[in-house]
Amino acid sequence: MAAEIVNPRSDSGTEGEEPFDPAFALHRGGKMAVRATVPVRDRDDLSLAYTPGVAKVCSAIAERPELVHDYTWKSQVVAVVTDGSAVLGLGDIGPEASLPVMEGKAILFKQFGGVDAVPIALDCRGVDEIVETVVRLAPSFGGVNLEDISAPRCFEIERKLQERLDIPVFHDDQHGTAVVTLAALRNACQLTGRPLGQLRAVISGAGAAGVAIAKILVEAGIGDVAVCDRKGVVSADREDLTDVKRQLAGFTNKAGFTGSLESALSGADVFIGVSGGTVPEAAVATMAENAMIFAMANPNPEIHPEVAHKYAAVVATGRSDYPNQINNVLAFPGIFAGALQVRASAITEGMKLAAAEALAAVVADELAADCVIPSPFDERVAPAVTAAVAAAARAEGVARR
Amino acid sequence: MAAEIVNPRSDSGTEGEEPFDPAFALHRGGKMAVRATVPVRDRDDLSLAYTPGVAKVCSAIAERPELVHDYTWKSQVVAVVTDGSAVLGLGDIGPEASLPVMEGKAILFKQFGGVDAVPIALDCRGVDEIVETVVRLAPSFGGVNLEDISAPRCFEIERKLQERLDIPVFHDDQHGTAVVTLAALRNACQLTGRPLGQLRAVISGAGAAGVAIAKILVEAGIGDVAVCDRKGVVSADREDLTDVKRQLAGFTNKAGFTGSLESALSGADVFIGVSGGTVPEAAVATMAENAMIFAMANPNPEIHPEVAHKYAAVVATGRSDYPNQINNVLAFPGIFAGALQVRASAITEGMKLAAAEALAAVVADELAADCVIPSPFDERVAPAVTAAVAAAARAEGVARR
Repeated sequence: MAAEIVNPRSDSGTEGEEPFDPAFALHRGGKMAVRATVPVRDRDDLSLAYTPGVAKVCSAIAERPELVHDYTWKSQVVAVVTDGSAVLGLGDIGPEASLPVMEGKAILFKQFGGVDAVPIALDCRGVDEIVETVVRLAPSFGGVNLEDISAPRCFEIERKLQERLDIPVFHDDQHGTAVVTLAALRNACQLTGRPLGQLRAVISGAGAAGVAIAKILVEAGIGDVAVCDRKGVVSADREDLTDVKRQLAGFTNKAGFTGSLESALSGADVFIGVSGGTVPEAAVATMAENAMIFAMANPNPEIHPEVAHKYAAVVATGRSDYPNQINNVLAFPGIFAGALQVRASAITEGMKLAAAEALAAVVADELAADCVIPSPFDERVAPAVTAAVAAAARAEGVARR
Repeated sequence: MAAEIVNPRSDSGTEGEEPFDPAFALHRGGKMAVRATVPVRDRDDLSLAYTPGVAKVCSAIAERPELVHDYTWKSQVVAVVTDGSAVLGLGDIGPEASLPVMEGKAILFKQFGGVDAVPIALDCRGVDEIVETVVRLAPSFGGVNLEDISAPRCFEIERKLQERLDIPVFHDDQHGTAVVTLAALRNACQLTGRPLGQLRAVISGAGAAGVAIAKILVEAGIGDVAVCDRKGVVSADREDLTDVKRQLAGFTNKAGFTGSLESALSGADVFIGVSGGTVPEAAVATMAENAMIFAMANPNPEIHPEVAHKYAAVVATGRSDYPNQINNVLAFPGIFAGALQVRASAITEGMKLAAAEALAAVVADELAADCVIPSPFDERVAPAVTAAVAAAARAEGVARR
């Protein structure tokens, strides 16, 4: 029986009829394809690209395994791996329903970084099942981009895969967001003449993005950062913390805040929202002068930009219709392109910091309150990030060419 | 450290220097890439292909899972899965070294069938490990082409996957070879005026291809077929048989041959070689008049074509430099294209038989001793096989659109 077409505006969709929404029309048949990069027009082509010619190449790789990087697409293709458990703001919609996002991610890899990518949506949920599956797949790929896997499983999955694989494993919801946030914050510091080391930040949200942002800010030398979940500041005195949050409490919140986000926000220089909650204007009003507000929930920022502008020197969001969009596409294509270029065995903290610096530097000469981060379509971005990440990989000793 | 380049003619290959063999030059950087089929040029494109537009598509699939076929590439992409355990004539060279073959297969899928395909070389060997891994991957793919997995594991892996998945699972080394062999044999029968039911065949080789050819010949109504392994005819009296060979003994060798291949070959009408061994000319000379010899080992046929022609009316090989090349590329692209077109839940025996008939029919009007099977580059092949397989899927009740 033919599948009917969803019509988001009516129940009367007829088979074969496109729904009214342009997103459905665009998605019909998917968003990607494979293509041959060598000719297969005749017998001679076939005898080189397939048998018997291919056998010599296989034998050479069997003898010297590192040649797989030279003679296959391994070193230019990334697996975009999900279990569909935390997709966009939709939550746990399962592997099939997550595929349009994974295909979208794959074509962004290609468009912005020149990196081939393949959506791999897994029908399993256990940490060890996912880890084992990705380890088994790994011979075919040069890197693994984890995507839309729910916390706290995402932390353990990433860590275990990094331990077991010698190719880059990168959970973009964590580190992509963290890199772009740090880049924007560096430029906001530059613009307002304050060193990062003197800032105190409050992060709303202790999921994948919140945890990774806290880590990178501490690594980058921020003065202090408090992370808040639904129950308030993640502080060492709390007894309800997961392992990840307990660890977080150990290297954040030097000021020792306890209680609500609002209490921590009083006098804070920076607000970073990755929670989807809402911060009352009265609390925003208590922030330090010249505050920086990055309210990244999409489509509804934690603090509406119009409110934020009343109190902040720099405002950023996750939305494309306001200036300063914190968009992961500014980071992941170049990060993987750089890592693959030098056949890095991992994406280290130093490589992420280098990516953030390079990204910030792209708009160094045009810094303004509404330009602390480049546009996703700024063509200078990917080459700059790629070069910085490749150089950092060499400096950190993880490059293999 | 940079990987050096293999130079098959000398040990003095220098970094950056291409080896002399054109197969290596062709394989540099791999043979395939991914491409976007939708534009991602500006903010509007991005908001449809990725967030926020993509969320509606994801939600629709979450609500009605069958829509994944309409709005992603799932229904047009096949996983080419191997463990690298039986690659070409090279044997067990492992997953990485098998990748050039899997990429080759993937581009043949695209070139000949318009089907997207992704190489998945697995780093695991247990039957259940491979099955479980492929089951977990399946949400992302419309079909699974098993490739170069050693017998007898390949039989069990295919059977278990077929039981657990509702998408086509097809071990090409078995069924692709069987379909093309049957097509050639049908035309050889036509040409020599003998019905298939009156033929007695001997197959040399009881691996993946031999077993599958025996099965399809019996299904197609051949008079009798005896399969031989290294120890001679697979017959019920033998006590060294694997489960698969025991089963084989149950539906082949009605004549009750025991002993050597040579003994069974005496008076036989058809020889089919998928073993790589050699058959002495003296034994070939004992075959029935107007024999058919399909000696498919590559590059060294079990019976050299020049010898075969002395005794046979029709000679076929696996080589591209002789007429009548039995090449799987004549079958698998169209078989998968047809199955995917109607979203078949499986590739049934009826679909394989229909593929063989359609393939044979392509050269019906130009039948000759040196033309019992079309050339791999005959553009009529894939559309004919695709249409026949889609129709058969509908007739057999496995089509879902």
